[in-house]
Amino acid sequence: MKKVGILMGSASDLPVVEKAAVVLREYGVPFETHVYSAHRTPEEARDFALRARERGFGVLIAAAGMAAHLAGALAANTTLPVIGIPCKSSNLEGLDALLSTVQMPSGIPVATVAINGAANAALLAVEMLAISDPELSAKLDAARREGAEKVLAADREISKELC
Amino acid sequence: MKKVGILMGSASDLPVVEKAAVVLREYGVPFETHVYSAHRTPEEARDFALRARERGFGVLIAAAGMAAHLAGALAANTTLPVIGIPCKSSNLEGLDALLSTVQMPSGIPVATVAINGAANAALLAVEMLAISDPELSAKLDAARREGAEKVLAADREISKELC
Amino acid sequence: MKKVGILMGSASDLPVVEKAAVVLREYGVPFETHVYSAHRTPEEARDFALRARERGFGVLIAAAGMAAHLAGALAANTTLPVIGIPCKSSNLEGLDALLSTVQMPSGIPVATVAINGAANAALLAVEMLAISDPELSAKLDAARREGAEKVLAADREISKELC
Amino acid sequence: MKKVGILMGSASDLPVVEKAAVVLREYGVPFETHVYSAHRTPEEARDFALRARERGFGVLIAAAGMAAHLAGALAANTTLPVIGIPCKSSNLEGLDALLSTVQMPSGIPVATVAINGAANAALLAVEMLAISDPELSAKLDAARREGAEKVLAADREISKELC
Amino acid sequence: MKKVGILMGSASDLPVVEKAAVVLREYGVPFETHVYSAHRTPEEARDFALRARERGFGVLIAAAGMAAHLAGALAANTTLPVIGIPCKSSNLEGLDALLSTVQMPSGIPVATVAINGAANAALLAVEMLAISDPELSAKLDAARREGAEKVLAADREISKELC
Amino acid sequence: MKKVGILMGSASDLPVVEKAAVVLREYGVPFETHVYSAHRTPEEARDFALRARERGFGVLIAAAGMAAHLAGALAANTTLPVIGIPCKSSNLEGLDALLSTVQMPSGIPVATVAINGAANAALLAVEMLAISDPELSAKLDAARREGAEKVLAADREISKELC
Amino acid sequence: MKKVGILMGSASDLPVVEKAAVVLREYGVPFETHVYSAHRTPEEARDFALRARERGFGVLIAAAGMAAHLAGALAANTTLPVIGIPCKSSNLEGLDALLSTVQMPSGIPVATVAINGAANAALLAVEMLAISDPELSAKLDAARREGAEKVLAADREISKELC
Amino acid sequence: MKKVGILMGSASDLPVVEKAAVVLREYGVPFETHVYSAHRTPEEARDFALRARERGFGVLIAAAGMAAHLAGALAANTTLPVIGIPCKSSNLEGLDALLSTVQMPSGIPVATVAINGAANAALLAVEMLAISDPELSAKLDAARREGAEKVLAADREISKELC
Repeated sequence: MKKVGILMGSASDLPVVEKAAVVLREYGVPFETHVYSAHRTPEEARDFALRARERGFGVLIAAAGMAAHLAGALAANTTLPVIGIPCKSSNLEGLDALLSTVQMPSGIPVATVAINGAANAALLAVEMLAISDPELSAKLDAARREGAEKVLAADREISKELC
Repeated sequence: MKKVGILMGSASDLPVVEKAAVVLREYGVPFETHVYSAHRTPEEARDFALRARERGFGVLIAAAGMAAHLAGALAANTTLPVIGIPCKSSNLEGLDALLSTVQMPSGIPVATVAINGAANAALLAVEMLAISDPELSAKLDAARREGAEKVLAADREISKELC
Repeated sequence: MKKVGILMGSASDLPVVEKAAVVLREYGVPFETHVYSAHRTPEEARDFALRARERGFGVLIAAAGMAAHLAGALAANTTLPVIGIPCKSSNLEGLDALLSTVQMPSGIPVATVAINGAANAALLAVEMLAISDPELSAKLDAARREGAEKVLAADREISKELC
Repeated sequence: MKKVGILMGSASDLPVVEKAAVVLREYGVPFETHVYSAHRTPEEARDFALRARERGFGVLIAAAGMAAHLAGALAANTTLPVIGIPCKSSNLEGLDALLSTVQMPSGIPVATVAINGAANAALLAVEMLAISDPELSAKLDAARREGAEKVLAADREISKELC
Repeated sequence: MKKVGILMGSASDLPVVEKAAVVLREYGVPFETHVYSAHRTPEEARDFALRARERGFGVLIAAAGMAAHLAGALAANTTLPVIGIPCKSSNLEGLDALLSTVQMPSGIPVATVAINGAANAALLAVEMLAISDPELSAKLDAARREGAEKVLAADREISKELC
Repeated sequence: MKKVGILMGSASDLPVVEKAAVVLREYGVPFETHVYSAHRTPEEARDFALRARERGFGVLIAAAGMAAHLAGALAANTTLPVIGIPCKSSNLEGLDALLSTVQMPSGIPVATVAINGAANAALLAVEMLAISDPELSAKLDAARREGAEKVLAADREISKELC
Repeated sequence: MKKVGILMGSASDLPVVEKAAVVLREYGVPFETHVYSAHRTPEEARDFALRARERGFGVLIAAAGMAAHLAGALAANTTLPVIGIPCKSSNLEGLDALLSTVQMPSGIPVATVAINGAANAALLAVEMLAISDPELSAKLDAARREGAEKVLAADREISKELC
Repeated sequence: MKKVGILMGSASDLPVVEKAAVVLREYGVPFETHVYSAHRTPEEARDFALRARERGFGVLIAAAGMAAHLAGALAANTTLPVIGIPCKSSNLEGLDALLSTVQMPSGIPVATVAINGAANAALLAVEMLAISDPELSAKLDAARREGAEKVLAADREISKELC
């Protein structure tokens, strides 16, 4: 199976990014994690992206805050799908990272998820890999049913409590 | 090859969405286009999503404006990757559609592109299909080189003009 | 009397939603509470809305955060009035939920109240039921007078304190 | 049948408000229209609200722009449901009117619709009156089916055109 | 000397408003404080404004949060200058109150100060009264010099510390 | 009578500022108009403010766009009340000028009106001068009644038209 | 004298960028102009930045819109000062480009000017070169005086006209 | 070597500003620190700027919050490059200070860094001084390599931890 690359612009993004690793493990999807900054280690970020496909990656996930350029910098150097996680930092409620990640110019897309939405980034990566992998897609369907079950269990609990 | 489904919430989104169709044609990726509203035809939107995988779709693209729920409504009913295009409407500069599309809750991701970013939505769909399709990925790489060439041609033009 | 349905997208919205239940109890308006997610349990949300009128509901209240689609998803499946409570989540100060709830397209209205405004959502539901129920409308008028009394009591207290 | 009161803060809001009148006529719901400003004619706005219920109104709709206080000023003087239409003016894309209308304090709700959403305001008023009026609610259901039909017709048109 | 009226929409605004009282006391300007809500006690707010000039007030200050209508409601009923203090509440960082206070329609001005800017509201009131009161204006000038002195003292402190 | 000083940061603000001049002429309030930029002619702006009181000014009005510092720069050099008009420029819908004008630090207030709200700025200046001028305050009251009359005339017109 | 490099992310930014060229010519500062996209020609952008100092550049100016990464991408590859011009594109009023340009992480600064502020970007570059160039700094001072003169001429014109 | 002037509008900005002092010390760049408020001590701020070049300053850094005018006020009185640090205060997440600092009118640039970005402000000042100082520019390059090393060390740590 193709690997997923999880990159973060700074070690401080780790608490957000860990949720992506948890999800990928649940689906048995192999992944590699790296701290590469678009601004502080541009060479490493570029080289990783340039060689990602030949090294067996199928999807890249990039988490960054503020003027969040990492996802865009990777996307500029690969035609693998790149998923961007805008990270909230100490100001502006994550709006800066969201706009820096999602408003990509024509030709270089970044698949953006919610602010700090690392679990969804991983799920989206799994969905991409599952396009041509029926077993993986069956796992996704099963997880959806479990997710629904949890909501319905909460429903039973709360309905009793409030009425 | 898997098909791409292009859905729009209203016929008024067509001028935006057409750019996605143009890109898919360039890549020879088959697609179907539909106007299904998450609010006015919820059954059709739901049924399309529920049966999309079995009908041969690999990726769905959904364009909608204002409280843009179409991408989310599709994503709620399929585990295929769903790409959301937030469409600018007459107020708020597209911010409403952007937040309604990208801020999805954990468990149900939507891959969001820039406001009115239909060409990138299509490219992202091609990138997803190309994960396991070397021929398609070669086309993407070629297009990137062409894109770079166009920038460099503009560079030669403008450098002369301004200096 | 018609019932009010209080729905929330996630059990985490309960602390907000409880205030609606408190208000409905004060007015003696019967209600049912459910956790149904527009994205994780779309079938249950839809079925609830589709059958709400025949099951004796007069108004639905829906609370959700982020890309808050629950109110809109209910409104798409019923012509009962649907009241939306945008819930503040950990980012963006509730602006995402507000715009996702209020900016509904023509044809499918959602009556939106303030961010986290569950008490007002319930009051609005009571006001709707009171259109044709003089007894209920008398209770609303009495509560207004009580509300005014509380402000005037605070006025007496503070006027003394500050001058 | 109860009447609907349509109020606007300024004659310049008329192009927006007219759509509400069109919808109410379609449903055969009687209405009265007034230009009363919360700031320039506070007495008339107040008196209208205070006497609205006894004069046979069931719902009030208020359209205003900028620091849009009209809906709130009416709501302060009646316990009839008040629907607020935030109107876009020449600056700030309607955000000022939206927040001034929707962010009402606890105790005095305003049912807010989208910026310039006059048609939905009228539909919402009809939905409120239809809670206890099966004939009106049947008309709403029929209109929904017609709305869906229009979307499906557009779907047939566009599907052909783009594929 | 004319009095200043300090009004707040809710007792919860008191911690903000107290700073205005402190400033007025420093200048020896007489004032009255009231809790009158534009929405919950519209009559009292109106009556206060209507009679304010004849009761000896020269300026009114109004503090309110969310859809902050109090300053506008007072301004609608008096031609005394009305100063608005937008109060931050639990969402939206005070932007809702700021826009609700400052974006008044032509004909009914509100002199708006910074979010939670109660001290400046009081100073502005003093400046208004000082237009025709040389003694008061001398006090304002003296306070300015004191304020500058404090900054310069901090400058001496910090210059040492950092260099 | 004290004079009003109308200052603008750039000649391009003139179309906005002219409305202030019109209002002051209606009330017979003497005024002077100047183009002084806080950034391009800081000396002239400062000197004007420093000598304004002794030269017979009672109130200053300052209109500026973008990082609108003119009102604040004047306020820093006088204890006369300074009214700020945030002017909309080609970007950001006037939000930059609004925040630059209204968010003044403690000690140096600016009385801010709506974006491009020059007529209200002038009215506010008249209200300030009228605190101690019964004749002027009578004119303000008369103008209010005229304003109300215009609204009521529009009401009669539109009520007929729409019903 | 060191050269200034003016880079733009797209030929469509030329109308904005030309103003920078005009200013540099006025000051006799040599410059080179290029169209290099951080996303479409990342290699060229990188190589330009890496070799800029040795090729005789003293300052770089980068203009880009949307998720404006060009300035940051250059700054990541040089320690020359990089000035960023956020360009307004068809949505969001330039806010996306502003935040993407200014919110750089610690270690890699970008000197950001106003949205579309190309003339100021060039002036800032001249100011930087003038730190150690008294002749250039004298030109800047002279231009300031001319700028002030223009404002004062406008002042004389408008003062007459309005009073 | 030219000195850097670090100015702050209020002593409360010190915790932010200290990081700039730390960076300048690391580079051995001489600096002076002052608390001068554009509004409370306009004379001192002006005089400092007017004499800064002759007193041996090469760059000025100004930190201020809210309607952050200090950087602009300095820039109005010197043609030295002025770097603005927008400081976050208790409301609006620093957006007010950002817009007040960056949106300068044509002719008077301010080099704006991220909200609370004092370390980058100092680095930018060093970069400006290093344009004509090869030794300083060598230190900047070395620090960049160290910064990259830190990221790569974090990369090695986290790669192990997560896989």
